[in-house]
Amino acid sequence: MEDERSDPDGPSHPRAFPGGEAGRSERQPCELRVDFPVSVVLPAGGTGERTGLSTPKQFCSVLGRPLISVTVQAFERVSWIQSVVVVVAKENMELMMDIVQRFQHRKVRVVAGGSTRHRSICKGVLALGEEEEEEEEEEGEEERPKVVIIHDAVRPFVEEDFLYKIAMAAKEHGASGAIRPLVSTVIATTSEGFLDHSLERGRYRASEMPQGFTYSVIHRAYQRCTESDLEFGTECLHLALQYCGTNAKLIEGPPTLWKVTYKRDLAAAESIIKESLSGSACVIVGGSAGAVTLADALQEAAAALDLELDVVSDLTGDNGRYLSEEFNFIQVSVTGSCLSEVKSLLVDLEAANRAPLHPLVVIWIHLCRPDEVMTPEPAASIMDVASAAKLRNILLYGIRLHQPEDPERWERSVSRVAEITAALVRERSPALVGQLLQA
Amino acid sequence: MEDERSDPDGPSHPRAFPGGEAGRSERQPCELRVDFPVSVVLPAGGTGERTGLSTPKQFCSVLGRPLISVTVQAFERVSWIQSVVVVVAKENMELMMDIVQRFQHRKVRVVAGGSTRHRSICKGVLALGEEEEEEEEEEGEEERPKVVIIHDAVRPFVEEDFLYKIAMAAKEHGASGAIRPLVSTVIATTSEGFLDHSLERGRYRASEMPQGFTYSVIHRAYQRCTESDLEFGTECLHLALQYCGTNAKLIEGPPTLWKVTYKRDLAAAESIIKESLSGSACVIVGGSAGAVTLADALQEAAAALDLELDVVSDLTGDNGRYLSEEFNFIQVSVTGSCLSEVKSLLVDLEAANRAPLHPLVVIWIHLCRPDEVMTPEPAASIMDVASAAKLRNILLYGIRLHQPEDPERWERSVSRVAEITAALVRERSPALVGQLLQA
Repeated sequence: MEDERSDPDGPSHPRAFPGGEAGRSERQPCELRVDFPVSVVLPAGGTGERTGLSTPKQFCSVLGRPLISVTVQAFERVSWIQSVVVVVAKENMELMMDIVQRFQHRKVRVVAGGSTRHRSICKGVLALGEEEEEEEEEEGEEERPKVVIIHDAVRPFVEEDFLYKIAMAAKEHGASGAIRPLVSTVIATTSEGFLDHSLERGRYRASEMPQGFTYSVIHRAYQRCTESDLEFGTECLHLALQYCGTNAKLIEGPPTLWKVTYKRDLAAAESIIKESLSGSACVIVGGSAGAVTLADALQEAAAALDLELDVVSDLTGDNGRYLSEEFNFIQVSVTGSCLSEVKSLLVDLEAANRAPLHPLVVIWIHLCRPDEVMTPEPAASIMDVASAAKLRNILLYGIRLHQPEDPERWERSVSRVAEITAALVRERSPALVGQLLQA
Repeated sequence: MEDERSDPDGPSHPRAFPGGEAGRSERQPCELRVDFPVSVVLPAGGTGERTGLSTPKQFCSVLGRPLISVTVQAFERVSWIQSVVVVVAKENMELMMDIVQRFQHRKVRVVAGGSTRHRSICKGVLALGEEEEEEEEEEGEEERPKVVIIHDAVRPFVEEDFLYKIAMAAKEHGASGAIRPLVSTVIATTSEGFLDHSLERGRYRASEMPQGFTYSVIHRAYQRCTESDLEFGTECLHLALQYCGTNAKLIEGPPTLWKVTYKRDLAAAESIIKESLSGSACVIVGGSAGAVTLADALQEAAAALDLELDVVSDLTGDNGRYLSEEFNFIQVSVTGSCLSEVKSLLVDLEAANRAPLHPLVVIWIHLCRPDEVMTPEPAASIMDVASAAKLRNILLYGIRLHQPEDPERWERSVSRVAEITAALVRERSPALVGQLLQA
């Protein structure tokens, strides 16, 4: 059974993507200096049998994107990480190459793995060595120690500050590894399946990923270890201890290091990404007073639903940054059934040439005059525009409401717009694009 | 680090609600006979600090329903379980009483807990004793051994077959408990925070919940244990061993026993429930040939999206069972803009008087004549009907499409209807009720 009090970290979810993956910006949240070369080995050869899915879990889609791509991105955005070697089963080489190309990964090398986890990691480490030799020949210099970080392809939420700790400790001590408190009591069983004794939980920890090693330690450990280690072993820290006499420095990691194991974990991962994308939206109002009034009312209603709205008149000048940073846009229109403003926003978003890492959401809010009959035409044309945008990973939806007749009805409409907007931004449903909803 | 090969269970997710919670029926999936009284203690006093939410996690909403209610239901549907004692912090007594009433739980007693987990469980066990004494007085008989199952309020997916194993083993051996393979290597650390050694994983197991005890063993264990045990201990099996000399029988449990710990786990739990509710829908076509044609085409398109459609002409006679078993209904209408069929379905659903455990989804598909102009009136009236239905936990949506003009366009429309239907059934979004979507 588990101890309610064993975990001091408190909230984990809000920290999931503190500034990088969350995409508020691609800037570094802080300047962490690492003045030695660091590379990463990502074993991704698992068969994913525990998820209950036919696709290995690292290739399963999370919000339209393979999990491995999310993990790779977590490393690529760290400026001091030079290269990421992804080790996959031979039959998945092509799939992985496609992912690298489609999601524009720039630091990745794909290497064919071995028959076990250790053999795959070993191949990844050797591939780094080859890379290094080539570099040495070219640059005519030897740089040691070089640190190798080993991580799981299915732990997508690793953060720069923790990677920094692992890299620095590996350089200093030869090896380092993430640990977590035990979530369950660990017990020893008798051969007949009865309780023998339980371990004193405070003395033990769970060994997690990432782990860091100097290149020389991990390379030597794999050169010296036995066939049996390669076949049955799982713990790199253990090899470093046994074959290099290196006692790894252990560092307590955040709960977000958890490993995607079951199908339910894919839903959990998706919820973390969705939450990181749905905290805010940029509202573009143009010059109309009616649009500004609506946007202001909407801002208040959305805030109550934990959706923060930035209202701007257009996306020129300094506001252009939203095009490269924001994940959600709301275009408020008051003129007739005109989609031109939305079309122009879509052109701007395309011009901003954002990497297709996550779907963007664009909501067209059409504020009709009180006497304006809602015609079906815009419904047809927004569907066409949305179908085209979807191909570029932009999800377009419409919401239509009438200008105020009486205050009470207006308030109800505004709060429904806010509710629908928050739901669309959070659920990011591809099936509902092009719909013109009523508020 | 974790071992890819350590878990033999394979798929976990599809088994989540094999027949009970999934709600295909309230019938027992099989007849498991337990001829002695079994009761349950559910400690639910946790503060939920690890979820990062202000509400303790057992009271967090999962698809509109507190997690504790989902767990209680997992026990209530087991015929041979007599009563469930839920132990909550004093300040949550009223909240818990409200939940019992609102979700019509019938076997629950709510008891005020103590300051630690063990003190709370102890109070729950004592409460069962009082209950038993009352019963004995009334019935004039003594029945021993009575088995007590202790479980966590935040492990909602426990299944009858596993409870059966725990109960039978507890009766035979005095105590029993769920175990799981270790997901991570367990390591011992030096006092300076370095790796000392790693445990041989095969020899150890994680102790999970539920656990079972004869009443006499667990009662005696709590009478004899020390203040220190009550203050700092976590493991009931350990108390049974130490104070009663009872070595618990350990039984390997399914991965669905996992504990909802972090906010991401709430999303995972919700995804399991959503999946269990969204595998099928009942399509009501009435007597129209056009509706039948659409339903048949839809059936094929939905099957490709893993949504199984049962097409019926109406819900009379034997088809009445859908009203008490199915979670999703699709009413296909061809006449004008008439909502009368949907209204009548809603009346039938209300008459079926289903416990408000999960939201039902009703989708009105309106097949218009090719020349029929889509008027805005039905949009207004479906919104009114949907707002009223939502109060009764029924989520109503509309989809409108035109009858075939050319086959290609028809096929596109049908596949869009299927896609939208599958999304509505899966997402069960309260914010989008009353919308009339276009296919």
